[in-house]
Amino acid sequence: MTQMEAARAGRITDEMKVVAELEHVDIHHIQSAVAAGEVVILKNRNHTDVRPVGVGKGLRTKVNANIGTSTDCIDVEIEVEKARMAVKVGSDTIMDLSTGGDIEAIRKTIMKKVPIIVGTVPIYQTAIEAIDRKGALIHMMPEGLFSTLEKQAEEGVDFFTVHCGVTRSSIERLQKQGRIMDIVSRGGSFITTWMIANEQENPLYEHFDRLLEIAHAHDVTLSLGDGLRPGSLMDATDRAQVEELIILGELTKRAWEHGVQVMIEGPGHVPLDQIQTNIQMEKRLCCNAPFYVLGPVVTDVAAGYDHITAAIGGAVAAAAGADFLCYVTPGEHLKLPDLEDVRQGVIATRIAAHAGDIAKGYPSARDWDMEISRARKNLDWDNQIKLAIDPERARELRNNSHLKENDVCSMCGEYCAIKLVQESIRVKK
Amino acid sequence: MTQMEAARAGRITDEMKVVAELEHVDIHHIQSAVAAGEVVILKNRNHTDVRPVGVGKGLRTKVNANIGTSTDCIDVEIEVEKARMAVKVGSDTIMDLSTGGDIEAIRKTIMKKVPIIVGTVPIYQTAIEAIDRKGALIHMMPEGLFSTLEKQAEEGVDFFTVHCGVTRSSIERLQKQGRIMDIVSRGGSFITTWMIANEQENPLYEHFDRLLEIAHAHDVTLSLGDGLRPGSLMDATDRAQVEELIILGELTKRAWEHGVQVMIEGPGHVPLDQIQTNIQMEKRLCCNAPFYVLGPVVTDVAAGYDHITAAIGGAVAAAAGADFLCYVTPGEHLKLPDLEDVRQGVIATRIAAHAGDIAKGYPSARDWDMEISRARKNLDWDNQIKLAIDPERARELRNNSHLKENDVCSMCGEYCAIKLVQESIRVKK
Repeated sequence: MTQMEAARAGRITDEMKVVAELEHVDIHHIQSAVAAGEVVILKNRNHTDVRPVGVGKGLRTKVNANIGTSTDCIDVEIEVEKARMAVKVGSDTIMDLSTGGDIEAIRKTIMKKVPIIVGTVPIYQTAIEAIDRKGALIHMMPEGLFSTLEKQAEEGVDFFTVHCGVTRSSIERLQKQGRIMDIVSRGGSFITTWMIANEQENPLYEHFDRLLEIAHAHDVTLSLGDGLRPGSLMDATDRAQVEELIILGELTKRAWEHGVQVMIEGPGHVPLDQIQTNIQMEKRLCCNAPFYVLGPVVTDVAAGYDHITAAIGGAVAAAAGADFLCYVTPGEHLKLPDLEDVRQGVIATRIAAHAGDIAKGYPSARDWDMEISRARKNLDWDNQIKLAIDPERARELRNNSHLKENDVCSMCGEYCAIKLVQESIRVKK
Repeated sequence: MTQMEAARAGRITDEMKVVAELEHVDIHHIQSAVAAGEVVILKNRNHTDVRPVGVGKGLRTKVNANIGTSTDCIDVEIEVEKARMAVKVGSDTIMDLSTGGDIEAIRKTIMKKVPIIVGTVPIYQTAIEAIDRKGALIHMMPEGLFSTLEKQAEEGVDFFTVHCGVTRSSIERLQKQGRIMDIVSRGGSFITTWMIANEQENPLYEHFDRLLEIAHAHDVTLSLGDGLRPGSLMDATDRAQVEELIILGELTKRAWEHGVQVMIEGPGHVPLDQIQTNIQMEKRLCCNAPFYVLGPVVTDVAAGYDHITAAIGGAVAAAAGADFLCYVTPGEHLKLPDLEDVRQGVIATRIAAHAGDIAKGYPSARDWDMEISRARKNLDWDNQIKLAIDPERARELRNNSHLKENDVCSMCGEYCAIKLVQESIRVKK
């Protein structure tokens, strides 16, 4: 039984218990939300020694970090380091998006060495194997794709991004409409290229039931990818994007009928004033399936600082109901993340998630701010540092600040507002 | 005549022309908005060789960078470098918040060497002179404060932060209510300390007409400071804060009666879901005077990354109608900014301002995103870099990315979605 089937059967699984405990949420909320598809529990039943992660309604907004090799940089040890960094600074999950080297071996090494929930985009492996072995992506075989999916599910991958909503009709619609950026999703571009060259329907759509069988067998959560997500503010919330979302809503229902857990992936590049609309649309069109968004970045102009453009969009998205934020690193649109990028990306995204959780009233979110504010008021630097979202970085900055007095910060120095007011009130008493 | 008086008299000044041209806005909009107090033009008439900056309704959201010495770090050259960095990366104004060394000499040097609109918090100089000369802040004399204001206005300082809304009744109200963080505004804490010790009313409130005379004589814009702004999410939008805002609204009307230009300063630490309320309150209570906000940071827990917490809040504030964003640097709550902090702070705040401008429909904001998207689509890296918000940083990241192919980025490498789709469409044609 999948978590969803167990929940529907009235069973409370160990995974549900862990999630309920970690989130300080009633176990019956978890059970009924999993049954309804409003919460997913990410954990492949073959993935051992790893803590399940709950994503969805009433739970803390989660954060994912993407890592992985490229053809320009193939070093599994670097990727293991990045995964460890992501865990260290508080990412809830990672996705291994490797496209260079022995993709299978790299993934297995990462999963063996780093105990964290892992997602993949299986078409990467199939497409790249087709390029390596047959000279071109267009020679990829649907059979190869399903065998990759099966192997990865058996290995213990916890969630799959599958671009099932890119169909012949949605590509036609996109072409008819026109766009500034066409397709920017790599998985989406792989599928589209293959579909156009072979004049065939998307196998992930056409044989969706086969995908469901694989997911069902190992309780892999399907993360229905947005292959047509906008890659420019100009393309946001257009007919191509919304058409794909409608298809994903239909597929969600089919997955639920088979007891398969589903999340929906969302954009991408979205102006600030369209974010709430995007969240509301997903919740309506996909029957409240958890929403997993990439950013969104709220401007196209800030390459080099896209962890910030994404933190703005992610915070607003989380406040409006997004459940899971994929990080964006400073180098997005320019280069693969290095270790420091991973740190910056995860922390920026955790800030966004936490700001959203405060706004959407997640029960214990405010307690953290209350505690650190008390420490700040008391000029209790040890606790301020300990409670900071990245204690190591906070300590580093404080230590570099050449203090003359120990109870204040170097920003205000002896003219510390808090200290002044405390003293003047003390004098009056 | 001040800009406001000229506008009311139907005159179009050179400053209005410059602002209209820079903003691509009709000159009559500028004139009528300045007459109504909905736009201020920052420029002291004694400050020569500097371009005026318009702030308010229908204009681009502006960005300010704070610089200045502390008692722990007194080096005017470093501050000049910071001011230059702020200008280089696109700050519209700076505030010199020096509290260490010869404050007057430092300010004059910065103003001489760096041609940009400059604001100050004059009470810093008076308070610190009182501490230096008389041993304690509480020995500060109202006369000294007004003479500082007069001198700085004559020197050419373009706008003053004056905490006129901290009154005996608002302090009493604050004490009655209680707060986690009491007062975190440094100027606010100076005034409060003095008021409590001397059992007197705030001279900036009591003798507001005198302040108006000084501002009027040189067309200094008053930035009515929020001495009681919240320093913790827990204190946001509380009675003390709103009471002060009401007082600032009353003072705005009095300033306008004297033809003096006014902005209102706003918080601070505000949960994401209270930001719009804060903007709307200011616009209503202060009759649409331009709103100048510090951040707001949307969580208290991210010391070390507060440029990001502030960018989230600033973007949402700008989208809701805030007109002017004061930067927050990564080291806020920990240390004074260094050069790299200034860069990070300005860029993060410009991102927030631009995201807000797109959302609030500032006419040309989207054009920038359109242009860079077109360059991205065309794999035109020169233009992508040139159009980036920080071209130098974008080029640095791209150059560090060890590319094998020149037309793609190292993020996707040969599996570039844009390239794949372009090629597959080309093949079909």
